[in-house]
Amino acid sequence: MATDMTLINRSAVDLVELLKIGAVSPHDLLKALEARIAEVDGAVNALPTLAFERARAAADALLALPVPERGALCGLPVAIKDLTEVAGVRTTYGSPIFKDFVPESSDPLVERLEAEGGVVYAKTNTPEFGAGANTFNEVFGATRNPCDTRLSAAGSSGGSAVALKTGTAWLAHGSDLGGSLRNPASFNGIVGLRPSWGRVATDPGQEITGRLSVEGPMARTVEDVALFLDVLCGEDVRDPMSLPKPATPFLTQARSGWRPARVAWSADLGITPVDPEVAEITRRAALRFGELGAIVEEAHPDVSEAHEAFQVLRARSFAISKKELLDTRADLLKPEVIWNIEQGLKLTCADILRAEHQRAAMYRRMLSFFGTYDLICTPATIVAAYPVENRYVAECNGVTFGNYVEWLAIAYAFTLCGCPAISLPAGYTRDGRPIGLQIVARPRDEGRLLAAAMALEQVLGLNTGLAVDPQVRHL
Amino acid sequence: MATDMTLINRSAVDLVELLKIGAVSPHDLLKALEARIAEVDGAVNALPTLAFERARAAADALLALPVPERGALCGLPVAIKDLTEVAGVRTTYGSPIFKDFVPESSDPLVERLEAEGGVVYAKTNTPEFGAGANTFNEVFGATRNPCDTRLSAAGSSGGSAVALKTGTAWLAHGSDLGGSLRNPASFNGIVGLRPSWGRVATDPGQEITGRLSVEGPMARTVEDVALFLDVLCGEDVRDPMSLPKPATPFLTQARSGWRPARVAWSADLGITPVDPEVAEITRRAALRFGELGAIVEEAHPDVSEAHEAFQVLRARSFAISKKELLDTRADLLKPEVIWNIEQGLKLTCADILRAEHQRAAMYRRMLSFFGTYDLICTPATIVAAYPVENRYVAECNGVTFGNYVEWLAIAYAFTLCGCPAISLPAGYTRDGRPIGLQIVARPRDEGRLLAAAMALEQVLGLNTGLAVDPQVRHL
Repeated sequence: MATDMTLINRSAVDLVELLKIGAVSPHDLLKALEARIAEVDGAVNALPTLAFERARAAADALLALPVPERGALCGLPVAIKDLTEVAGVRTTYGSPIFKDFVPESSDPLVERLEAEGGVVYAKTNTPEFGAGANTFNEVFGATRNPCDTRLSAAGSSGGSAVALKTGTAWLAHGSDLGGSLRNPASFNGIVGLRPSWGRVATDPGQEITGRLSVEGPMARTVEDVALFLDVLCGEDVRDPMSLPKPATPFLTQARSGWRPARVAWSADLGITPVDPEVAEITRRAALRFGELGAIVEEAHPDVSEAHEAFQVLRARSFAISKKELLDTRADLLKPEVIWNIEQGLKLTCADILRAEHQRAAMYRRMLSFFGTYDLICTPATIVAAYPVENRYVAECNGVTFGNYVEWLAIAYAFTLCGCPAISLPAGYTRDGRPIGLQIVARPRDEGRLLAAAMALEQVLGLNTGLAVDPQVRHL
Repeated sequence: MATDMTLINRSAVDLVELLKIGAVSPHDLLKALEARIAEVDGAVNALPTLAFERARAAADALLALPVPERGALCGLPVAIKDLTEVAGVRTTYGSPIFKDFVPESSDPLVERLEAEGGVVYAKTNTPEFGAGANTFNEVFGATRNPCDTRLSAAGSSGGSAVALKTGTAWLAHGSDLGGSLRNPASFNGIVGLRPSWGRVATDPGQEITGRLSVEGPMARTVEDVALFLDVLCGEDVRDPMSLPKPATPFLTQARSGWRPARVAWSADLGITPVDPEVAEITRRAALRFGELGAIVEEAHPDVSEAHEAFQVLRARSFAISKKELLDTRADLLKPEVIWNIEQGLKLTCADILRAEHQRAAMYRRMLSFFGTYDLICTPATIVAAYPVENRYVAECNGVTFGNYVEWLAIAYAFTLCGCPAISLPAGYTRDGRPIGLQIVARPRDEGRLLAAAMALEQVLGLNTGLAVDPQVRHL
């Protein structure tokens, strides 16, 4: 049966309206997804675990309710990253240790999503424990870039980005420690938003406060990302960092017509090499804020301690959350994960306090910078998609990196300060690889960030919201 | 000039109404305070730094505005703990290092308070850097308990509690790492509320996320505490942990008439000795929730790791915030502060991850306990006021403590889980020393906690809101 591409190519915002008036049913959407997955997912491996039976039961349960009780998503299917637990659905964390793990209960964010009428039908592929920005693991193998399946999908929310690009998802959830909602958005030409700390309440695991990582929305358009953030966000006592829902929904804020007056542009934040072509594509995209009435200037906050602070705080998090696995299952951990935990265990309190001081200083400078500029624009990634076989980017523009995360500094500099940051499709390299513009706002300012990104999206005119067929080249 | 005790003995809630209709002016209140301070503060030393000139200028500025623009406090004077910076007013932190320090800008909470028409007129005494639960320091000496000036005022918000009890404040600000809003409330017979993490945004210092300490309100009645919390709370981007104001003001929530259905009582949480007389007074007070329709049962969550986790996480915080002082000014630090920083610097990441794991486990058990019980009641302190010369409680009921903070476990067990906790006057020992009942709610549940505390306050009938004259006995 041919896939109903008119459904696949609709926006999530439109589909919710159609669901509300009964013009489509959740079952129509699930059917369209199932057919599309059968067509394209074999070439990209974005959705290694499917849960259509569970999804159909959830859809039936929703349809038994009157429309006003079906929640904001009213039966729209949603894909969940495989680092996040969904009751009754295999959750592997991309790790052989958990290859057969089926949790009994769902993460709080999944509960919230389901309460809002989101229907979970698939888990999206991720690197082992989300470590690394290329989506491959020993359980399911690699996820491939649909623009050219010889290339990496980036990560760690790679499966989600690829599902969106290939039209096997309208909304796909992701998470972001060092850029994992943004890199795959950049490499695959979709939209990924890293929200502020606490915006999306989740199971805090072993680190109930002070986590660097966040959960967040990915979609094909900024408006769909805003809709998704509205259902993901909200207070939950199980997550001590969680924030209440905003007084004005993010979708309303995204549509508010707010425009930035002053935008900063930086190709490198002074801390990283960058591919010149990528710098040029994203610079041109940033400059187009000028057409929206903004002054765009080359400037950036001083984030020179980002490398050191991030390595320490990230290693601490890994040690807190994974030491037990190192003690008991080291044989089943990939080298990057072992390295992270071991780096963490070597830390002294003096190392940690130095990193905390660096971060506090960066945070203050960042706020002061946002006193002058409404937004900061940078490339979302310093390179476009690279061969899928490479575990990470080892060098750029003649600079060799010291470890497998350093190439992500342009993203993690903002992680350290809890800034919301979006990756918006900015253009293509000469050989056709997408690249994202990272737009960053002051902490807690997702509303303005979304409004600005939506306006720029329209100016750029790249974001058609259409699914693409995987480009299977020379495999 | 005799003090106008009719003003002094009014509640803050009443005075705000009188200020709004112009029946009293901020200047009347400042005058009453100045006279009362002259009468009584010499005996107790609660307010070592006064700022009446600045206060009168602030009052004049407020009076130049129309009433609706004077904020929720409309000119009510407020005292600020001497660990918190007020622009142009000496802030010593109780440390000889800062004995002449006059900050140029105010802490965000002071800014918020002033924007709501709070008029700052005094700084309240505190132990050096807030370390310890007895209020004495090398700059200003000891604050004494007004019920018997031979006794300790507790601390670290000791000056604030004593100012309230002696009628030199209607609202006094405090902060709480290991119980510092609760111990002095208990020892002095007033009300102190430790809010949830993030409720009161403040300058985060060097630890922008994950802090254990919070800022909070103290007053003579629960209703005044609720009013004060409403003006202290609110989002501020400078504090990444901060929460937006609640949809319903806390004062409204306090007056909602909500009553607990099930209340747990524990004299010791299974982790601390307790003075039998204190246990008995507070047990009787807790049982009176029965008169409000609640089932009161002896039960407590398992917080057995509280000692170890608190020592580690507290030492980490001290190291992060104070290492620089140890490096440069150790000669001017008191031994307890040096000990804390040194304990912190000795920590390894393995120590910290163990403490984080313990805390995460306690947090989960705490939430599960609050699935069964609406509130937990304990003594706010395990003893009543002790001689002011003792630096801390060295033993209780035959048990000797290992260090100067262990006697505070009944308070810091809840610090670790971010629970809001109030100390409410529960009664007096046979020799006339006040003792507080600690009532604890689920994280973020200040509204219900205040409603329950207000109801119990009425049943107990102890909280007259009246100022007392210091009992100067055998000094």
